[in-house]
Amino acid sequence: MSTAAAMEWLKANEGASVNRLVDWLRIPSISTDPAYAAETRKAAEWVHAQLVELGLESQIIEVGKPKGSGHPIVLAHSRPAADYKGPHILFYGHYDVQPVDPVDLWESPPFEPVRKPAEKDGPGERIVARGAVDDKGQVMTFIEAMRAWKETTGHATGGAAYTILLEGEEENGSVSLPGFVAEYQKLLQECNVCLISDTGMLGRGQPAITYGVRGLAYTEVTLHAANQDLHSGLWGGRCPNPITELTKVLSKLWDKKRRVTIPKFYDDVVPLSKKERKAWAKLKFNAKAALKGIGLPPAADVGEAGYTAMEREWGRPTAEINGIWGGYTGKGAKTVIASHASAKVSFRLVADQDPAKITKAFFKWCKEHTPDGCRWEFTDHHGGFGVTVPFDSPYLRAAEKALKRAMGKSPAMIKSGGSIPVAGLLKSQLSLDTIFMGFGLSDDRVHSPNEKFELDCFRIGANAHAAFIGELVGK
Amino acid sequence: MSTAAAMEWLKANEGASVNRLVDWLRIPSISTDPAYAAETRKAAEWVHAQLVELGLESQIIEVGKPKGSGHPIVLAHSRPAADYKGPHILFYGHYDVQPVDPVDLWESPPFEPVRKPAEKDGPGERIVARGAVDDKGQVMTFIEAMRAWKETTGHATGGAAYTILLEGEEENGSVSLPGFVAEYQKLLQECNVCLISDTGMLGRGQPAITYGVRGLAYTEVTLHAANQDLHSGLWGGRCPNPITELTKVLSKLWDKKRRVTIPKFYDDVVPLSKKERKAWAKLKFNAKAALKGIGLPPAADVGEAGYTAMEREWGRPTAEINGIWGGYTGKGAKTVIASHASAKVSFRLVADQDPAKITKAFFKWCKEHTPDGCRWEFTDHHGGFGVTVPFDSPYLRAAEKALKRAMGKSPAMIKSGGSIPVAGLLKSQLSLDTIFMGFGLSDDRVHSPNEKFELDCFRIGANAHAAFIGELVGK
Repeated sequence: MSTAAAMEWLKANEGASVNRLVDWLRIPSISTDPAYAAETRKAAEWVHAQLVELGLESQIIEVGKPKGSGHPIVLAHSRPAADYKGPHILFYGHYDVQPVDPVDLWESPPFEPVRKPAEKDGPGERIVARGAVDDKGQVMTFIEAMRAWKETTGHATGGAAYTILLEGEEENGSVSLPGFVAEYQKLLQECNVCLISDTGMLGRGQPAITYGVRGLAYTEVTLHAANQDLHSGLWGGRCPNPITELTKVLSKLWDKKRRVTIPKFYDDVVPLSKKERKAWAKLKFNAKAALKGIGLPPAADVGEAGYTAMEREWGRPTAEINGIWGGYTGKGAKTVIASHASAKVSFRLVADQDPAKITKAFFKWCKEHTPDGCRWEFTDHHGGFGVTVPFDSPYLRAAEKALKRAMGKSPAMIKSGGSIPVAGLLKSQLSLDTIFMGFGLSDDRVHSPNEKFELDCFRIGANAHAAFIGELVGK
Repeated sequence: MSTAAAMEWLKANEGASVNRLVDWLRIPSISTDPAYAAETRKAAEWVHAQLVELGLESQIIEVGKPKGSGHPIVLAHSRPAADYKGPHILFYGHYDVQPVDPVDLWESPPFEPVRKPAEKDGPGERIVARGAVDDKGQVMTFIEAMRAWKETTGHATGGAAYTILLEGEEENGSVSLPGFVAEYQKLLQECNVCLISDTGMLGRGQPAITYGVRGLAYTEVTLHAANQDLHSGLWGGRCPNPITELTKVLSKLWDKKRRVTIPKFYDDVVPLSKKERKAWAKLKFNAKAALKGIGLPPAADVGEAGYTAMEREWGRPTAEINGIWGGYTGKGAKTVIASHASAKVSFRLVADQDPAKITKAFFKWCKEHTPDGCRWEFTDHHGGFGVTVPFDSPYLRAAEKALKRAMGKSPAMIKSGGSIPVAGLLKSQLSLDTIFMGFGLSDDRVHSPNEKFELDCFRIGANAHAAFIGELVGK
């Protein structure tokens, strides 16, 4: 059995696999910050070299308008064996990472990966670094699975047809990806299904396949008042304070049931089916325990009225203020009335909400709530559609079998509240479904200080990918 | 006439007077930022040297707990002539300045004073620098008046008894001043009235004496939720977002009439008298024109319902958010739910509101509005009482005569919306009244980028102080 041999190899060579991941994690590929452009490219070159080493035809492709202004895409192909009859898989991942602030909350520097015991959660180790799980660590589970097949059979995909697309702008709205997909449409349409490892398991040792993710509309609004900062003694009570007015406007974005108040916001939302709600309830997700894990009391279980925490995360749209700033934010006191105040406001969307439509509706809503004497400045950062894969997809079943083989039990079929805009893009432009076979845990501190990836999860991921290859080639 | 001679000297030597001010303005004495501690001390030493040069007994006194931890106070005395029968004046000023941010909005570096034409406002020049009017420029009007008397009569105060107190923490809540006043109480109680030049005129060429200033209570609140930043996809809609919740709470601080909603907030407010409102109405203050001057339309004339803009500034308390921050505030997008969010919230108070009582009431109000699952962290930055001088004070009349002599017309009797905590302190600890004889203009950009002082105003101030000395000594 080739799959068994590949799994044996993974077990015997795990230390080296992890060391390769550490090398990659050392590269600070923060895609949203132009200051890290060179490092981001370095992370692309690093993984390109890995793919070449595995015998794949890999290239680094310049993207953006003008070409080269974006972070490049690594595109690789594994020629299938002559007798291969299975589907052509498009593996998608990203080599860029989130910014690291607030950096003073990191227990170790974000780009100096640390391997340490997995705390109170029993035996095993974890690796702590920015990108440990999102998404370098998860991409490496696939790369090391290919390495196992390569070492044991001579062919990194065991003869299966794979196209590998690794982008460097996932954390920056995948801004160049639509142009790339359009340009390489013919080539990408040879693929039958997309496979992504950028989501989580249901819990420690509880495998899961994600069949839906939420969409995203991310905006920035600035409210302007006076053309200069003002003395709060001379002007306090005499003119609009943009911070005050911004808080007043934004506080109206939710009603008492914590539903978003933008007109028509829920018009395109596909309601949760009874069947779906029932299936999710069986997963026995403990919302209170999850809150405890982030230091919050049971009273913090707040969200849209009428839905469970799981339903709110997986199946309902939300609005969040991701950042706010204005006026004096230094030490001590400054008696100033600011000239303007800003907020980053984003919306998580579900099928069939359209990010562009939601952003437009939000800006219109802001305009309708313009405080006396003030004016708005709007920025549309980016958006992506949510996506839900048909439950009867044969590729979902293949992934299910692979996970069962890697872990000895059937995975749960779940959704995720996060957003992977590429899935929406591939569906709309290439009619490709996406299977999310992810290995993260809910306490991995994704996007936060001290992001980590359990080595247990890394191991499961590598075995699952090795088994998935085995499913494809029937070995 | 000695006053006439002093005025002649001021006219003939204005260039040198302004050059001395420029020297002082070059010293970045930002008291709130510990990084500028040495420069702040340098500004004290500079003015101390000036006073010594004028023949006064001056000393630099260490303050703070422990001694020397604060910015020093410059204390100087002018021994009166043997036959002097007038009051002993306490001149108060401050040599520290506000922070300069946002620094990129300055047209010239804040500590490289520029002398330039007074724009469209007719002939004359202005000096642009941090501290130009608040308060170094105004203190220099007094110092140069003394220099004129010294040069023309040999005695800097013409024989009048003056004690001069210049502090370096006015922009930082005068934190060491109460301790200093307590320690030097016996000496300071020899004074009969305090004279402060840190306020404004009613308008260009319209002299004014300020008989009341507002008090201040300055606070900082932080709302905490999770013990870590969270991924807004995984947690959005499942737990409290402290930025969202903070905006909801703060937006409730005002009702629809823009009155502060904290219980008992208005309990100690002395209502405006009919007489006072009538007198102010006669000043024909043009609120709309003032708004236009800061780039705002007439619709921006907002504030507590039932009061004119002037009444709101001079006679009514307000609440303002001076700063707000939380979550991701960098470029682009970060899909995060912050662990906490903060705001600087201050209150301008009128007689007889007690800053400590107001701060306590605000924190209590916050607690009563604690969002589910969140907790507060409170900081009391500082406060000061408002003060109103009795309208029949003889010293007010003397200042009135001096200003009339300097400008050829009677000053208006006005109030200011700003806060000069020292006035409240001197009243409560020493029973000293304070006369505010100020020479600023409302468009001086106090506390803002491009702060300026008109040389016309500098001239009026120096002449007024010279004439005030003349009033005291009957010359």
